[in-house]
Amino acid sequence: MKIDLNSDLGESLGGWRMGDDAAMLDIVSSANVACGFHAGDPAGILETLKAARARGAIVGAHVSYPDLVGFGRRNMDVASADLVAGVIYQIGALQGLARVAGTEVRYVKPHGALYNTIAHDRRQATDVITAMRAIDPSLVLVALAGSPLIDWARDAGLTVVAEAFADRGYTPEGTLVSRRDPGAVLHDVDQIAARMLMLVREGVVEAVDGSPVRIAADSICVHGDSPGAVAIARHLRERFEQEGVRISSFAG
Amino acid sequence: MKIDLNSDLGESLGGWRMGDDAAMLDIVSSANVACGFHAGDPAGILETLKAARARGAIVGAHVSYPDLVGFGRRNMDVASADLVAGVIYQIGALQGLARVAGTEVRYVKPHGALYNTIAHDRRQATDVITAMRAIDPSLVLVALAGSPLIDWARDAGLTVVAEAFADRGYTPEGTLVSRRDPGAVLHDVDQIAARMLMLVREGVVEAVDGSPVRIAADSICVHGDSPGAVAIARHLRERFEQEGVRISSFAG
Amino acid sequence: MKIDLNSDLGESLGGWRMGDDAAMLDIVSSANVACGFHAGDPAGILETLKAARARGAIVGAHVSYPDLVGFGRRNMDVASADLVAGVIYQIGALQGLARVAGTEVRYVKPHGALYNTIAHDRRQATDVITAMRAIDPSLVLVALAGSPLIDWARDAGLTVVAEAFADRGYTPEGTLVSRRDPGAVLHDVDQIAARMLMLVREGVVEAVDGSPVRIAADSICVHGDSPGAVAIARHLRERFEQEGVRISSFAG
Amino acid sequence: MKIDLNSDLGESLGGWRMGDDAAMLDIVSSANVACGFHAGDPAGILETLKAARARGAIVGAHVSYPDLVGFGRRNMDVASADLVAGVIYQIGALQGLARVAGTEVRYVKPHGALYNTIAHDRRQATDVITAMRAIDPSLVLVALAGSPLIDWARDAGLTVVAEAFADRGYTPEGTLVSRRDPGAVLHDVDQIAARMLMLVREGVVEAVDGSPVRIAADSICVHGDSPGAVAIARHLRERFEQEGVRISSFAG
Repeated sequence: MKIDLNSDLGESLGGWRMGDDAAMLDIVSSANVACGFHAGDPAGILETLKAARARGAIVGAHVSYPDLVGFGRRNMDVASADLVAGVIYQIGALQGLARVAGTEVRYVKPHGALYNTIAHDRRQATDVITAMRAIDPSLVLVALAGSPLIDWARDAGLTVVAEAFADRGYTPEGTLVSRRDPGAVLHDVDQIAARMLMLVREGVVEAVDGSPVRIAADSICVHGDSPGAVAIARHLRERFEQEGVRISSFAG
Repeated sequence: MKIDLNSDLGESLGGWRMGDDAAMLDIVSSANVACGFHAGDPAGILETLKAARARGAIVGAHVSYPDLVGFGRRNMDVASADLVAGVIYQIGALQGLARVAGTEVRYVKPHGALYNTIAHDRRQATDVITAMRAIDPSLVLVALAGSPLIDWARDAGLTVVAEAFADRGYTPEGTLVSRRDPGAVLHDVDQIAARMLMLVREGVVEAVDGSPVRIAADSICVHGDSPGAVAIARHLRERFEQEGVRISSFAG
Repeated sequence: MKIDLNSDLGESLGGWRMGDDAAMLDIVSSANVACGFHAGDPAGILETLKAARARGAIVGAHVSYPDLVGFGRRNMDVASADLVAGVIYQIGALQGLARVAGTEVRYVKPHGALYNTIAHDRRQATDVITAMRAIDPSLVLVALAGSPLIDWARDAGLTVVAEAFADRGYTPEGTLVSRRDPGAVLHDVDQIAARMLMLVREGVVEAVDGSPVRIAADSICVHGDSPGAVAIARHLRERFEQEGVRISSFAG
Repeated sequence: MKIDLNSDLGESLGGWRMGDDAAMLDIVSSANVACGFHAGDPAGILETLKAARARGAIVGAHVSYPDLVGFGRRNMDVASADLVAGVIYQIGALQGLARVAGTEVRYVKPHGALYNTIAHDRRQATDVITAMRAIDPSLVLVALAGSPLIDWARDAGLTVVAEAFADRGYTPEGTLVSRRDPGAVLHDVDQIAARMLMLVREGVVEAVDGSPVRIAADSICVHGDSPGAVAIARHLRERFEQEGVRISSFAG
């Protein structure tokens, strides 16, 4: 049994630090690297790419709306021409830096508000798919497990990897519990590890109402933006290894 | 006899227009395309790249300091790590958009203050050269005729094309007359065409003091940021064609 | 009889020009001046403010979402703390420049997507009202005639001026015809002037279906972003003057 | 005996944290608050201003070149019209937010590369002075002790407060030891406190060569960008209080 662990990296900006890329690269198999639109400056991104290569993590483009102050977390009604070209621009920039770092961009995982929007908004989803197919049709799309985006992207010919979130609660319908509702975010490292083990073994997590819910996911997203988050991710990896689950990128 | 004509394109930004890319693409053989740091948004850049491909112009990355409000014309003391990675980022982004447009980035021509600085500043020149060699050593560097940058880049293994400026005056030493001095900028379309014909045929222009000065240039930069500038460029091309000088990119 | 004419000014950015501020300042009584978030750099804004003072136009803050590439025309889901503080920041910056130009900020007219959103979105409307009351409760809000924003702002204690758009079609319900529908934008200078004269005299315009619709407006917005738009605005002013309608700011 | 302690605050940006404003506001009497050009977003700045008011610190505008990625630490050759208007814009924005926070902008302390440049560059110094006098001639300028800027600003009619740096070494000539040379930055909390006590009592510090050097300073700059820096500042304040030196703003 094996599973991919992915995390958002390269999110520092000039003098501002965010997250602990080195610590996370000891844990994850896939690095979602910021491309400069929500975070990341070229020199910092390049450093993260070199570190990813050194640790053997594969690299994905963590593309975003153009919004530094909002960290890409604010919905923006971006026209198709701008969204398509903006995603290509970001992927291209990261490809250039990746080449210099001795690695390459294997997948795309949209960030923040763009991630949430394209999970269900067909127009913007199509724009992202169009951009990926135009620049490199072999790019894999990492998408929210259970979202209609998965079928849209597959129908368009992209390879898609569905992901679950280690520290998020699920509804009985298999969607994420809204951050405004109780049970949205989990903090207990043992509970999180136990849930994810069940996900990997049985394809099931326990929903907020206690019912089992089926989640088809080939990657698990872990966070590194606080010491607590890093601890959760590290413990998860350790438990996986103890239980014989190999951490390995979907792009192997 | 043949010569390359190059011009700065793709310099609009969102709702702001600059220059007449369509008109200039009827004139030039090489398009210096903005990369988003001094001008250009992804959708506008993509449009310019498609137009360049349709007209058969080859494409260069018009890389810059990050400075939209100053249009890349203000000197910035950018550290080497930032300059190297910033140039790679811009070239990569343009490569991505160029691929989608069915063309490719063949050369790099730095813009504005960066162009002027690296013509003589060895540290920053080395950074740009390092970036080019790291991402694609076959990229040609377009540099100011007579500047030490030409030797630095050739010594580092890059192919270099020296360029002259159609509408600028030259000192007896072969450098550009400072914009603060009389004779810096020429406006007469016939005079400009006659000078550039002499340059192509004899490798010589008349300096501000009337003396002949030798300029080794394989490309001529023309501007398109005003109707007058477009008229100068168009007349220059017509005169070249009348005199049997073929307009053709240095990159074949 | 009198009416205010307002227009968006100060929307150049560094090397990019937009509109003809000098021409428009011969026409309008109120200048909506960009504050740097969708357009306008400090030096250009200061120049526009000095010109407004010289021509006797009063000054309003044309506040926006932070989005240069989208020119403030893209909806952004900005949190209240950011929207309130962002509007204060823009008004404060304009107040500082206005003081130096010998004038002052008398009103606020939100721009683009923010204008459209707060016309009907109570949360964001409240944020803008909160910001205005916090920095200067005597600031007038210029709002879309017929929108619920007008009552929300008056209930909060602000003085509100409702505005009509000279070149836009109206539905029988008194709302603007959507730009996606026929009749949204008018181009005939005589028709536009005749409509606005009727609006000033009778408080009525002819809707797209030919029915008369009541519009309560104390200001008319005219555009200056193209030679055609300037011609419409100039003709409108001339017709008003011929008919004895005085052009005068609401803040007179 | 009394002295002012000042520190750079409000330098977070959206999701990125920098420094510990709350801790520093327990230590300093003057808060140099970022204005959005090198750091600080409106909501974060407003929060810092409210905290400064609550702790009784006076507020200064920490104006900068426009350069987020470089954190205002890169020299930029900004033209006078842009520099003057840019400084006014920043002061105005901070004045607006300060008014809402129940406080006001009492002084200006330029940041980073702008601070260093105007200490000796007369053109840019004059631009900053011009901006301050235009928006509010009662604004105090905080400037590097011993720099020619002090006389330039006083000659122009501004009140100037000279500042020393707690953790920096001085040359026998009274200038700061370059960061490239040994002895530039001090780390020993006791040594730093002893030096600053001597400065306050005798107007003298020990230069790197052991000789005493006279420094006329009415304010001492302390940093808060690391736990070590906060500890230095806290210890300095404690020693001052133990020795009967009152910490009090120059603007009383």
